[in-house]
Amino acid sequence: MKKIAVVLSGSGVFDGAEIHESVLTLLALERHQFEYQCFAPNSEQMHVINHLTGDVAEGESRNVLVESARIARGNIKDLAEAKADDFDAAILPGGFGAAKNLSNFAVKGSDCTVNPDLVTFIKGFAQAKKPVGFMCISPAMLPHIYGQGTKLTIGNDADTADAIEAMGGVHQACPVEDIVVDEDKNLVTTPAYMLASSVSEAAKGIDKLVDKIAQMLT
Amino acid sequence: MKKIAVVLSGSGVFDGAEIHESVLTLLALERHQFEYQCFAPNSEQMHVINHLTGDVAEGESRNVLVESARIARGNIKDLAEAKADDFDAAILPGGFGAAKNLSNFAVKGSDCTVNPDLVTFIKGFAQAKKPVGFMCISPAMLPHIYGQGTKLTIGNDADTADAIEAMGGVHQACPVEDIVVDEDKNLVTTPAYMLASSVSEAAKGIDKLVDKIAQMLT
Repeated sequence: MKKIAVVLSGSGVFDGAEIHESVLTLLALERHQFEYQCFAPNSEQMHVINHLTGDVAEGESRNVLVESARIARGNIKDLAEAKADDFDAAILPGGFGAAKNLSNFAVKGSDCTVNPDLVTFIKGFAQAKKPVGFMCISPAMLPHIYGQGTKLTIGNDADTADAIEAMGGVHQACPVEDIVVDEDKNLVTTPAYMLASSVSEAAKGIDKLVDKIAQMLT
Repeated sequence: MKKIAVVLSGSGVFDGAEIHESVLTLLALERHQFEYQCFAPNSEQMHVINHLTGDVAEGESRNVLVESARIARGNIKDLAEAKADDFDAAILPGGFGAAKNLSNFAVKGSDCTVNPDLVTFIKGFAQAKKPVGFMCISPAMLPHIYGQGTKLTIGNDADTADAIEAMGGVHQACPVEDIVVDEDKNLVTTPAYMLASSVSEAAKGIDKLVDKIAQMLT
């Protein structure tokens, strides 16, 4: 049975992992009979957003691993302990957590840095040519991990695409129901909620991403 | 287009709405081309559970509506404003939030009380014979809303079933992939994570519940 690592970044679109994308990813993995293990960094969130108002919740702090455990129903491990050798593939759902907690892309744009444990972990897959899927805003981290010329999509947002190109990525516009594949790197990306207007719309691209990873694993 | 109310109770299985059940519900509703609106009570959670350790997070408090907004991506309203007349059906995902925030069943068992706004709202559907679906632990509230003789399931947990029978409910054991229907009351229940060991297993019963409600609406 193939084993997939899923890296979360909190629980909630505005300050953590996008919840729908995360659940849809787990559902798609199970439907391929894949086992999975969730991981998240044991670090404080950049901030807490009140998801009702959209405002920063001043004075509140939350831990990324602890909040991600909500999506994983407690079955989650510290990203620092994750080893690529133990897995056949890795997937990152999106949400602002990818740009705020796993990297600082939301603040720094093309000058961003990426969580070193995540870089080490995903580079393990890259070096072994194991398939990796990133969705929503999380592909903005890929040039830092896979290097110059990495082909990817975050949908069609021009400013985000420009920042990705400035880091050496090759951005391809892509509709919500589709994927972009860097065949050399075994790397699959999809826009998900960068473009989706509903959970079933997000599901189309996510299902396709997981299908493609499954195909790469056969 | 049919419009369905979805009542959430926080965000996280141990102190709020079960996240997988909630997302699976929204996905199933969309696949039937139903519109939906999420609601949650504007009240404090009974407590906050650290989902990594399972311990109560002492000194922390969270608002049910604000946390539920994480699942709803901000598109959610106060349960106090919900009117049954505006909807064709209602669905409650489970999670401990149903037994801690929408009722106090987790603490009081068969002596529990139910959020009065929820009682009023769901009674509106009951009186109009509009279909209603409750899943996981949330059916434990049904005898308080629908009265004696209400047929329902929470799976097969004997203690919970006994408490439900003590309140006048008629509990029927049910496997995770199936539903129990009270045909007189247009009421559908499914065990979901009272029995499910995975998201795809939970999806089977939830999809069937939504299918049944769709059938009742045609």
